[in-house]
Amino acid sequence: MQSEKLAQQMAFICEIEKLKTVYRQNTVIDQSRKENSAEHSWHLAIMALILADYSKDPNIDVLRVIKMVLIHDLVEIDAGDTFLYDESGNADKLQREERAAARIFGLLPDEQKKELSELWREFDERSSPDALFAAALDNMQPVINHYLSDGCGIRGHDITSEQVVEKKQFIGEIAPALWSYTKQTIEKSKERGFYKLEMSEK
Amino acid sequence: MQSEKLAQQMAFICEIEKLKTVYRQNTVIDQSRKENSAEHSWHLAIMALILADYSKDPNIDVLRVIKMVLIHDLVEIDAGDTFLYDESGNADKLQREERAAARIFGLLPDEQKKELSELWREFDERSSPDALFAAALDNMQPVINHYLSDGCGIRGHDITSEQVVEKKQFIGEIAPALWSYTKQTIEKSKERGFYKLEMSEK
Repeated sequence: MQSEKLAQQMAFICEIEKLKTVYRQNTVIDQSRKENSAEHSWHLAIMALILADYSKDPNIDVLRVIKMVLIHDLVEIDAGDTFLYDESGNADKLQREERAAARIFGLLPDEQKKELSELWREFDERSSPDALFAAALDNMQPVINHYLSDGCGIRGHDITSEQVVEKKQFIGEIAPALWSYTKQTIEKSKERGFYKLEMSEK
Repeated sequence: MQSEKLAQQMAFICEIEKLKTVYRQNTVIDQSRKENSAEHSWHLAIMALILADYSKDPNIDVLRVIKMVLIHDLVEIDAGDTFLYDESGNADKLQREERAAARIFGLLPDEQKKELSELWREFDERSSPDALFAAALDNMQPVINHYLSDGCGIRGHDITSEQVVEKKQFIGEIAPALWSYTKQTIEKSKERGFYKLEMSEK
């Protein structure tokens, strides 16, 4: 007989299938379709595995970082993906995502509901070294993806390279070498014309 | 200045973008497109996180299982996805995947190349309790996905429910409760007509 606990866990595992159909602004590398939040999360988890040594704080817990990036976007199943540069969308993002977290993590048995809700909140608030490193990866990956997919997802978005640098430069406090790589990629992207020109550059 | 080590790691992280465009036989839940191996791997990683307690062996290492499922399909970037029931495709699968593993993990610095190559081989050979649990999840997820997506990916494939049970029943040795759930899902899928009928059932 199936336990109530397993039934709850499987309800959650079936529910999260939906994240594969939540699409982001950017595309996959062959530009055939938008990237979804599930494969984005997978990419971050492998980045955490490979790049953990670049954390300025040597005490980060890689398993916790991986857990965070795997689940960080689940709230988008209800709340949708909000583009980093969308000011009006970001105004009520927290409220929408809080409701989504309550429903989606609420499918799980109490102990796992508590663990995953807390990990999500910690990520969202960047309130620990693990969460800061996870946020650094989450901000680094789109820059790389934009570069690899010829600017798809950022071209025509009325965004200057200065705005990108402003949003992302916190990476430098958390993982200096990764910020250096990210910044170089922003510069190469600028040379290739992915961003709107500054007033002074026109 | 960027270190040689970081350059190698970033070459790997850029290369694996391609897994998002390696498509499997089954579809995503709204049947709008085939599932790809990156989002499939993400799903398995969360399953490992949520379901680890069902391993009959209580000593599995969840972080190792998660690492395995995150990387288990990277060889498909070169070797393609081979359908479980494709006998001719499976005949030279190992050789194609060995070459792919050498190239793709070979992008990494030596230490990480060694770690990931060994994890991949361990998974592929099911040569440890961690690898067996990872393989159980990898065999459980498509059954659930087929059920959730109305049989897309299994209907019309000339496969009987007995063939599915035969391929998957090893799960029962590794995680009895998960096999019980999977077997129930196979039975419900059979009732919904996803599989070819046995000779005796016609």
